[in-house]
Amino acid sequence: MSGSSTGQIFRVTTAGESHGAALVAIVEGCPAGIGLSEADIQPDLDRRKPGQSKYTTQRREDDEVEILSGVFEGKTTGCPIALLIRNTDQRSKDYSEIMDKFRPGHADFTYFEKYGRRDYRGGGRSSARETAVRVAAGAVAKKLLAESGISVLGWVDQIGPVKADAAKFDRDEIINNPFFCPDAEAAEKMAAFMDALRKEGDSIGAGVTVEAHGMIPGLGEPVFDRLDADIAKALMNIPAVKAVEIGDGLSCIEAKGSEFGDAIRMSGFQSNHAGGVLGGISNGDTVRARMALKPTSSILKSRPTIDIHGNETDIVTKGRHDPCVGIRAVPVAEAMLALVLADHLLRHRASRI
Amino acid sequence: MSGSSTGQIFRVTTAGESHGAALVAIVEGCPAGIGLSEADIQPDLDRRKPGQSKYTTQRREDDEVEILSGVFEGKTTGCPIALLIRNTDQRSKDYSEIMDKFRPGHADFTYFEKYGRRDYRGGGRSSARETAVRVAAGAVAKKLLAESGISVLGWVDQIGPVKADAAKFDRDEIINNPFFCPDAEAAEKMAAFMDALRKEGDSIGAGVTVEAHGMIPGLGEPVFDRLDADIAKALMNIPAVKAVEIGDGLSCIEAKGSEFGDAIRMSGFQSNHAGGVLGGISNGDTVRARMALKPTSSILKSRPTIDIHGNETDIVTKGRHDPCVGIRAVPVAEAMLALVLADHLLRHRASRI
Amino acid sequence: MSGSSTGQIFRVTTAGESHGAALVAIVEGCPAGIGLSEADIQPDLDRRKPGQSKYTTQRREDDEVEILSGVFEGKTTGCPIALLIRNTDQRSKDYSEIMDKFRPGHADFTYFEKYGRRDYRGGGRSSARETAVRVAAGAVAKKLLAESGISVLGWVDQIGPVKADAAKFDRDEIINNPFFCPDAEAAEKMAAFMDALRKEGDSIGAGVTVEAHGMIPGLGEPVFDRLDADIAKALMNIPAVKAVEIGDGLSCIEAKGSEFGDAIRMSGFQSNHAGGVLGGISNGDTVRARMALKPTSSILKSRPTIDIHGNETDIVTKGRHDPCVGIRAVPVAEAMLALVLADHLLRHRASRI
Amino acid sequence: MSGSSTGQIFRVTTAGESHGAALVAIVEGCPAGIGLSEADIQPDLDRRKPGQSKYTTQRREDDEVEILSGVFEGKTTGCPIALLIRNTDQRSKDYSEIMDKFRPGHADFTYFEKYGRRDYRGGGRSSARETAVRVAAGAVAKKLLAESGISVLGWVDQIGPVKADAAKFDRDEIINNPFFCPDAEAAEKMAAFMDALRKEGDSIGAGVTVEAHGMIPGLGEPVFDRLDADIAKALMNIPAVKAVEIGDGLSCIEAKGSEFGDAIRMSGFQSNHAGGVLGGISNGDTVRARMALKPTSSILKSRPTIDIHGNETDIVTKGRHDPCVGIRAVPVAEAMLALVLADHLLRHRASRI
Repeated sequence: MSGSSTGQIFRVTTAGESHGAALVAIVEGCPAGIGLSEADIQPDLDRRKPGQSKYTTQRREDDEVEILSGVFEGKTTGCPIALLIRNTDQRSKDYSEIMDKFRPGHADFTYFEKYGRRDYRGGGRSSARETAVRVAAGAVAKKLLAESGISVLGWVDQIGPVKADAAKFDRDEIINNPFFCPDAEAAEKMAAFMDALRKEGDSIGAGVTVEAHGMIPGLGEPVFDRLDADIAKALMNIPAVKAVEIGDGLSCIEAKGSEFGDAIRMSGFQSNHAGGVLGGISNGDTVRARMALKPTSSILKSRPTIDIHGNETDIVTKGRHDPCVGIRAVPVAEAMLALVLADHLLRHRASRI
Repeated sequence: MSGSSTGQIFRVTTAGESHGAALVAIVEGCPAGIGLSEADIQPDLDRRKPGQSKYTTQRREDDEVEILSGVFEGKTTGCPIALLIRNTDQRSKDYSEIMDKFRPGHADFTYFEKYGRRDYRGGGRSSARETAVRVAAGAVAKKLLAESGISVLGWVDQIGPVKADAAKFDRDEIINNPFFCPDAEAAEKMAAFMDALRKEGDSIGAGVTVEAHGMIPGLGEPVFDRLDADIAKALMNIPAVKAVEIGDGLSCIEAKGSEFGDAIRMSGFQSNHAGGVLGGISNGDTVRARMALKPTSSILKSRPTIDIHGNETDIVTKGRHDPCVGIRAVPVAEAMLALVLADHLLRHRASRI
Repeated sequence: MSGSSTGQIFRVTTAGESHGAALVAIVEGCPAGIGLSEADIQPDLDRRKPGQSKYTTQRREDDEVEILSGVFEGKTTGCPIALLIRNTDQRSKDYSEIMDKFRPGHADFTYFEKYGRRDYRGGGRSSARETAVRVAAGAVAKKLLAESGISVLGWVDQIGPVKADAAKFDRDEIINNPFFCPDAEAAEKMAAFMDALRKEGDSIGAGVTVEAHGMIPGLGEPVFDRLDADIAKALMNIPAVKAVEIGDGLSCIEAKGSEFGDAIRMSGFQSNHAGGVLGGISNGDTVRARMALKPTSSILKSRPTIDIHGNETDIVTKGRHDPCVGIRAVPVAEAMLALVLADHLLRHRASRI
Repeated sequence: MSGSSTGQIFRVTTAGESHGAALVAIVEGCPAGIGLSEADIQPDLDRRKPGQSKYTTQRREDDEVEILSGVFEGKTTGCPIALLIRNTDQRSKDYSEIMDKFRPGHADFTYFEKYGRRDYRGGGRSSARETAVRVAAGAVAKKLLAESGISVLGWVDQIGPVKADAAKFDRDEIINNPFFCPDAEAAEKMAAFMDALRKEGDSIGAGVTVEAHGMIPGLGEPVFDRLDADIAKALMNIPAVKAVEIGDGLSCIEAKGSEFGDAIRMSGFQSNHAGGVLGGISNGDTVRARMALKPTSSILKSRPTIDIHGNETDIVTKGRHDPCVGIRAVPVAEAMLALVLADHLLRHRASRI
């Protein structure tokens, strides 16, 4: 009810905020018998970790995960898996400048309206910091999916005006540049664009694509928990996301039925405009989703705002911020997609007698 | 778990399929003391009803709703409200042509994979027919929202290449043309476009915008049930929807932080790029969402497919179909948005001591 | 959230009140492929039906169930099954005597406190009338359980001071007397006791036992949804129930560990003090639960109460009432146990990789 | 779905097992603005802590709780509260004697059937060890209840044949003896009884009563989440509980309606046979529940069992065990009742417009 859980059978509940002692996730519903250790989780956390390049925040967090329960002799027990990540870099500083002001684009104002108070040291639960523990939980989901041959893969397809060229897609390139971009040429342009942007003290939006390969048909529900709807919700639950597309997405508006419906042959679907989902249920083809992330709200330029006492004022958000939150959102998007699929994989077991 | 429910406090569960005896919804969690009768619900059903113009399906359904419970002496009792709509036009026909074939773009194939069987007379639960009872449930949600001064409004903003011009937005025009289009000129172009399309036996996609006015700040959650994420899921749960945008949506990718963050003054936000949601919580400004609907999958043109016995074949989908499902999706989008807001309005009551 | 649903995968939501138009249940999560028709449900409804003997209320209800959805060609489709029972005997009468008074032992006072209003024509949702549709839903659960060889059986073991003798248990006798009592001799004594009681215009409590046979080990959860805890909740959710025992129940207080722990041999457990549940999970032995029902609150004797205006007064509850609600609770107890087991049967599928 | 959560708005999810690294609870839905620190929680943990007298297990655990999130400047923030208790006494020992054998009365057999494996070092999630973190979560619930003037109180009313005399109830005595018994004389008899029992190497059952004072009318639901049903489930979810009574409980079977219905006057109910709940909703009177706990299953006497390889054998459960688990169950019962009431207190806010 507090919106800190996701999933029905494979269910993840998180706690912890940007400037608190630790982040915690409890992963419920993971079946018994799956091999799991911290070593399965840490690589995904390292991909998301801040400070990996000059294009992400310089906040220093080791993001080391500890499995507190649910694993015995290297295998899951079927009981809840608790994951703990201590916050180590809670830099003590002077908050007097910002503690009473609402940062535009942030949740400061809405938090205050909802709870009547807020932790002025940062974004609290709305902060992207919380997504670290989602990535850890997502790594557990990936292990479950792997048992069925399903894997997920995400990348940045656009930063501001710079788009990756689908024709130049190179899977190996994704981890070769600081932008998780599968097109090496585009990655170079992104570097140039970002260097200029950082000098301005400004920020930029991004597009991220995430896919599931090795899909099984039959996952999803036909009405209120459609697979594509659960994916849309999962991605929109990532901070800064403002749009989600499934398959061809927005461009379907201008398509005709004779062009859009994917023809079926015994060898499989002849195209994938649908993005792997028909009537809310997976068709076995690659699941493809895309999300749009707004530019980081914390920038060095001054903007008009108000404070909690009702005064109009201006604010500059100093500190360590990602100039493009979309970059580090890639492993988060993978985690969210993995969580949705793991849940529907288990739900599917109850479909037939 | 079967994905037939939506909402947590204000919770709606539906049953019924395209060619069954009836559609049913149980609306749980509506507080006691709200005036309610069939007359509050019927107008929304009538807007969605098929056969209203030559641009929608000619299936004949009265869509008369009966309130079976939860109302006493004209007021809600706080107990579940059961809504019943009988299906009246289940035209008996010869299904031998299509009963073994999977219609491309439809859920036929995925249903069969999920359940091992399907009702070959239509789309079953995946059919847009099911949305009639969502509209009925949504009308109850609208009554609850009205108590807090909140209202929702939807319209078609694009059909294929024809876009409504925001500068010509006329609220009264929406119900003056068969496309729920607020721009009279665009509506005329839509009519011409649709006439040509129908002659081809083809179908087309559409864009639908839905807004909530009179919003209260503080509705939503910061992590997994963000207000915008719940809206994205709700809209993506409408058949044929392939993309959802909140506020500026997809265009945020190319925006800079200095342009995108909505400045705050005591008189309110100075712009609404965010679409009324910050950090997953409403900021009091108009909530604005947009969805893209794919072209109707049932068309008169022949397409390649397979049958349940593993043979490759072709199919033509005769019968009574909407050439543009986006049109009748307008009252459905309103209903879905109303359901999300009603739920978060009640959830908000537990936020503070 | 309104407490009108039970179960997580096999989930039942009911609507409808004592004096409304109809009772409705939506059964979600029933797997596809199970044979089902009204004929599978009606016999259980008939056992619960009022007016079967002079020992139950004379209200006349046919309690005919209609399946509105979720079944196609005689088999479940995997989609929600909606069940409809119209209320036919809503005798119009003069409520002026009781409409403002709170009947002692009834929910009148608490309803008024919760909702600020109530349907003064009867018990609303708290009325035992609502259990008719639970029995219908339970019959669906029984069909699912039968696929795994599990069946449930309930009986009255005590009415007031008259106890059935376990040594004289005769399964066939249960439906041979109006008390669902498996001991023919005790049933005769119950008849004599009840005849005297009716002359007094008073009512009496009862004990009901319900068992599940053919159980599968491994159903349940170890912490918050223990199988025995879910059974306890399910039975306590039946109107008038004030106590629930599992296995040896209350007598365990005086037992020693050396006597109570059921010894295990390859042929099975050597006793069943546990009632078929260990650590919240079924052990494969017969599940045995017992519930105590208080005497009917509606009696012909005058009692002190207050009215909604704050005046002290007296009340006599005329009308058609069961002098011992425990009798008709037998099929309800079976239904509730079946619902719990059906849910855990499906949940069990997600336990292991 | 894994049964590790309880509550709907005020929701607690736990993780951690008997011999794992730590116990964790995430408390969701606690409103913002409630004063909370570790000092509010530790006293309840200390009451439950093992090793407080010779009548409880000698396992040594400090049970120190750390609040990881959800509290800022001494007040709850409205966000999830994560509670951590490290297990410190996981005595390393030789498990070869018991690792393959199923201990009678324990969950060993059922765990193995459910998950296909088990942690042979102890009871895993079914162990009473897990209840430590429920007590911590319950202490948070108590703080919320205190804001509305509600408090809970539990005590041992019976150990084996020794019953506390209600006429000698002395609230202050409860914490004066090692049995949480409110009758000093009975406590002395309990000591004598337990001394003899320990020499035998046997164990004994117990009765525990728990009450809520300062109740508010209107908490609960009329059908499937009745307040008394939720209490019954909550108490039955405590390890070893085999029966739950509400109000007069089991004795209602022999009561007549003219005796049982609590008369209502303007000054309040004239008796409390109902235990504070009518039709599933609180009536404002003291909520009274009682639970029966079976004797500890771990005893020093040899018993017949089987092992995981299908051999018949015998087992003696050495180690540090409570001879009467009922004693330390008192703070657990308080915690479970507090959790149920906190949840319904918040749910109540959505009942009326």
